[in-house]
Amino acid sequence: MDILVVNAGSSSLKFQLYNMDKNEVIAKGICERVGVLGGDNAYLEFKSNKIEKEIEINKAMPTHKEAIELMLAMLKDEKVGVIKELTEIDAIGHRIVHGEEFFKESVLIDDEVIKKMEEFEQLAPLHMPPNILGVKSCMELIPGKPNVAVFDTAFHQTMPDYAFTYALPYEDYKDLKVRKYGFHGTSHKYVSEETIELLNNKPNSKIITCHLGNGSSITAIKDGKVIDTSMGLTPLEGLMMGTRCGSVDPAAVLYVMEKRNLNTKEMDNYMNKKSGIIGIYEKNSDFREVRNDYLAGDERATLTFNMITYKIKQYIGSYAASLGGLDAIVFTGGIGENSAIAREKICENLEFLGVNIDSKINIETEENRTKKPVLISTVDSKVKVFKINTNEELAIAKDTYNIVKFGKLA
Amino acid sequence: MDILVVNAGSSSLKFQLYNMDKNEVIAKGICERVGVLGGDNAYLEFKSNKIEKEIEINKAMPTHKEAIELMLAMLKDEKVGVIKELTEIDAIGHRIVHGEEFFKESVLIDDEVIKKMEEFEQLAPLHMPPNILGVKSCMELIPGKPNVAVFDTAFHQTMPDYAFTYALPYEDYKDLKVRKYGFHGTSHKYVSEETIELLNNKPNSKIITCHLGNGSSITAIKDGKVIDTSMGLTPLEGLMMGTRCGSVDPAAVLYVMEKRNLNTKEMDNYMNKKSGIIGIYEKNSDFREVRNDYLAGDERATLTFNMITYKIKQYIGSYAASLGGLDAIVFTGGIGENSAIAREKICENLEFLGVNIDSKINIETEENRTKKPVLISTVDSKVKVFKINTNEELAIAKDTYNIVKFGKLA
Repeated sequence: MDILVVNAGSSSLKFQLYNMDKNEVIAKGICERVGVLGGDNAYLEFKSNKIEKEIEINKAMPTHKEAIELMLAMLKDEKVGVIKELTEIDAIGHRIVHGEEFFKESVLIDDEVIKKMEEFEQLAPLHMPPNILGVKSCMELIPGKPNVAVFDTAFHQTMPDYAFTYALPYEDYKDLKVRKYGFHGTSHKYVSEETIELLNNKPNSKIITCHLGNGSSITAIKDGKVIDTSMGLTPLEGLMMGTRCGSVDPAAVLYVMEKRNLNTKEMDNYMNKKSGIIGIYEKNSDFREVRNDYLAGDERATLTFNMITYKIKQYIGSYAASLGGLDAIVFTGGIGENSAIAREKICENLEFLGVNIDSKINIETEENRTKKPVLISTVDSKVKVFKINTNEELAIAKDTYNIVKFGKLA
Repeated sequence: MDILVVNAGSSSLKFQLYNMDKNEVIAKGICERVGVLGGDNAYLEFKSNKIEKEIEINKAMPTHKEAIELMLAMLKDEKVGVIKELTEIDAIGHRIVHGEEFFKESVLIDDEVIKKMEEFEQLAPLHMPPNILGVKSCMELIPGKPNVAVFDTAFHQTMPDYAFTYALPYEDYKDLKVRKYGFHGTSHKYVSEETIELLNNKPNSKIITCHLGNGSSITAIKDGKVIDTSMGLTPLEGLMMGTRCGSVDPAAVLYVMEKRNLNTKEMDNYMNKKSGIIGIYEKNSDFREVRNDYLAGDERATLTFNMITYKIKQYIGSYAASLGGLDAIVFTGGIGENSAIAREKICENLEFLGVNIDSKINIETEENRTKKPVLISTVDSKVKVFKINTNEELAIAKDTYNIVKFGKLA
């Protein structure tokens, strides 16, 4: 069975075509600058197992529909493509950012599901419209094939009310659905399932998963179910990120708006695009450069590095309290998978929790760039610490496969 | 030496007259509704060791100056007062909400200090103007006597930069002084000093102080110095409080403003006055009623109770991580001193941290209403848990005494 995984972001379209029988990605690519200034400067990067090197194509993509048309043309292109007819695509799995409280797991998409998703547009106005357009375009251009929606929020739907409710007037929850939803759910689910296996299916496992990348979130998972997560109504809350501030005094939001004369849209942009690493480090939003400058003793890089790692350390303590103990910490995402020094600094002085990093293994894991899961804690560390590479696309493909083949999730 | 402690709040004036030699409060009182709608409905409650019962007086108080005039008239009143001449007041200690980064400890007030405080008015626009008017009025009405400023923010000034910096654009800190300051400093300092004594001056002590009242904050204190605290630029951040929301997704602030069509002033009022307990429980903002309804099984009271205690539990875990371990947890403030069930719930499932509450002692401490410090953890609890009544007025009086008598703090 060949499954196409589609992730239609605010101005990009990522895709992977999976051969599930061979458990292999046979083609993948990304369209960038979709719809940006009319999409005139958009381009596609494409790689398949038929070609040696990635190719790049410049083409106008005013909307995600044109991006999907180009993707499909590449997939069945004689020279670079991997299929002859679009009918060879057996199903399409879509990453959908927001499932509100309604969608608690992945679902087969029908008109009713699309209608529901459209109701949630205002909860993620930058992402839901392209998400939905991606679905509709696939339905139109690959007719008669099943489409599955995999929600970023779904895995977090097991949070108890006292964890997801904000202490704002209760009608904000009842009428406006303002509450904590959490994001990166597909990634937290994927790595936590791997971890539970690595813990030999220990019952009542207490796991903290740290997805650290350009966007970062952290989740407390008890016996396989989320009980708390750091992102909130939107992906702004919680940790300091590449360009996002994470949590700040809510009154500071109003103070800066007043002092800088910003309206709500401008302030949203200010906190989502100009804060985080780019706000403090100022050179750019790249954690790798922060890391290098930190090692070189640069003052602002040191502040940035310390702020990022300190906040993650605090969340680990906080979620250990939520879980009432701790069996494992998992690092994933671009930073979590690749930065030994970040992992070391985060786990520093957590010996009282039973966390002991094996520095040698931790550094080797960065150097040898292994994609396999690695236990980076010492043999006698009470809490196991893992580096596990995430694979959201594979998780989406698997959910799609199970729903299409068996009519339900595994 | 007689020291007058003055706390000129946004619409109230609290005061206590201390006889430092006898270590005794000889008179105290509060003026309420000062300046509210012109101050026509203002009133004073007054108690001295000359009278059996508290007395109440209705009098217009358009500003805090009239409140101070009335206070002084009462203090030297023939029937109820305790002094003959105002010259018997040796010094005045003032609670000042915001000392910005400039004031790291209590100081003797001169024109330069007043000028500085006026510069910080916009950081606490509701509190700094009455604070400063209180100082000026005392200087005018009790001439020639020393006035000392004791700042709510000062004790927190030892926080490291990575703990107090928000991940907003760095110029917000440089130009606007937007950062975490922390409040309730006088209370956290007072109970942490008591705790360090109770720990027999253990070196490198790791203490978490929970000041839980109508306003609540929690502080991580290492070797007597604050390394983190939950309130921020303003007293809104952190825990859920009587009418304050505490931390929420910063984007939720903007979302609610848009959906409810609120401007920044209205939203500030919304989060400071209509959220927290009153927002969720809805009946009122009184934790005692939440507690009673929670015990009776009321659904919304249960949610409120769980939200409050869960967030505190998370902060304890978080600050244990900041401290790299934990020696003691201290409960203070109206809720912390009086609610056994809140303390029990907060400490539930923290055994992995070495926290074990002695339920019997904990409940007895509520029932016998003792004002003394009580160790409420079990004999073998690795982490000591204390109930300690705070006394901000006494702390202000002591700072004032030391500065006036010895020219410096103890």
